[in-house]
Amino acid sequence: MITFHIITLFPDACKPYLDASILGRAQEAKKIKIKYYNPRDFTLDKWARVDRRPYGGGPGMVLEPESILKAAQKALGRKKGEIYFFDTSGMQFTNTMARAAAKKVKDIVLICGHYEGIDARVQKILKAKKITVGPYTLTGGELPAMLVIDAISRQIPGVLGRFDSLEEERTASAEVYTRPEVFVWKSKKHRVPKVLLSGNHKLIDEWKKQL
Amino acid sequence: MITFHIITLFPDACKPYLDASILGRAQEAKKIKIKYYNPRDFTLDKWARVDRRPYGGGPGMVLEPESILKAAQKALGRKKGEIYFFDTSGMQFTNTMARAAAKKVKDIVLICGHYEGIDARVQKILKAKKITVGPYTLTGGELPAMLVIDAISRQIPGVLGRFDSLEEERTASAEVYTRPEVFVWKSKKHRVPKVLLSGNHKLIDEWKKQL
Repeated sequence: MITFHIITLFPDACKPYLDASILGRAQEAKKIKIKYYNPRDFTLDKWARVDRRPYGGGPGMVLEPESILKAAQKALGRKKGEIYFFDTSGMQFTNTMARAAAKKVKDIVLICGHYEGIDARVQKILKAKKITVGPYTLTGGELPAMLVIDAISRQIPGVLGRFDSLEEERTASAEVYTRPEVFVWKSKKHRVPKVLLSGNHKLIDEWKKQL
Repeated sequence: MITFHIITLFPDACKPYLDASILGRAQEAKKIKIKYYNPRDFTLDKWARVDRRPYGGGPGMVLEPESILKAAQKALGRKKGEIYFFDTSGMQFTNTMARAAAKKVKDIVLICGHYEGIDARVQKILKAKKITVGPYTLTGGELPAMLVIDAISRQIPGVLGRFDSLEEERTASAEVYTRPEVFVWKSKKHRVPKVLLSGNHKLIDEWKKQL
């Protein structure tokens, strides 16, 4: 079982997605575990304030180091685990990384920035891996964190209904069709490709490969 | 104002994220609007079932075309809009696309697949744009849809607290620091780079650029 530890100011914005559908069932089946840590619960500030103005000027607010480090400490204790940090300058996250993590890692800490970012000392102290999910800027690390959890979890045997569902070839290329065989939309008929109705699995496999 | 129309079997898994923080405030300020369409509300099946076995065999279930097309029809009516469809073989979504959409598009329909995918006739009939958010496979299109909404919304003037917050240079490279100036963690001192405390904005800008 892999445990994902999410450090986020917005646990309630993440939980409903992670508790639904396939990931919800994966948690019930104890294939994965998801734990949440809110930096506000780890700050000494009496108003639970964790964002401050940046040194050197510039817009927006920066997350202070201490509460995030304390949350990471609470998450891992003495255990070793991977610590991910999201930044568009980081290493591109891929299916290959997801497969490797699903096989080898027991604890994954996901640190979600928000506002203008996290004090840079956090990443240096934790030696966290800087990763990016793609070439675009987001308002926070919550979506990248959920995405990494989703991509890794579906690589764990038993999380998808049938293990062969995760063949990437399929998702990357093949078209899928279901009922009705002849679908009428705005008086036009749209048919399922004949080969799929042939029952000839050799032909079907060839058709899928050439797509 | 941009209206995002999400076609998803799991609206409750998306709404809490999209209603929180910056995107929640953008909705309140009427900078963006988010509408949800569940294919189950558009099917003729008396059990509201929208997934069926794929023709030609293979694992899992495929989403039927009719209910998704009806949802898209309801979303756009006679209006023109962009229709996005998520597939790892699609065009890579980028900040450049997000900026262009934020400027030009009024209605964006986001079709979220789930299970083994959506009947291929849907994409052909709608001439939807196939896009991908990155080189990894996910359990559904919900995270990519939220990600596209997030990346486009923050490009709309007034959505971020101060418009200069969205400079990509910053997010892509510069380290940010906040209080305390000397942060002690496990008896080690971690200092904010001196230049940031100098008050010399020319030097600070140079330091940010060379990172």
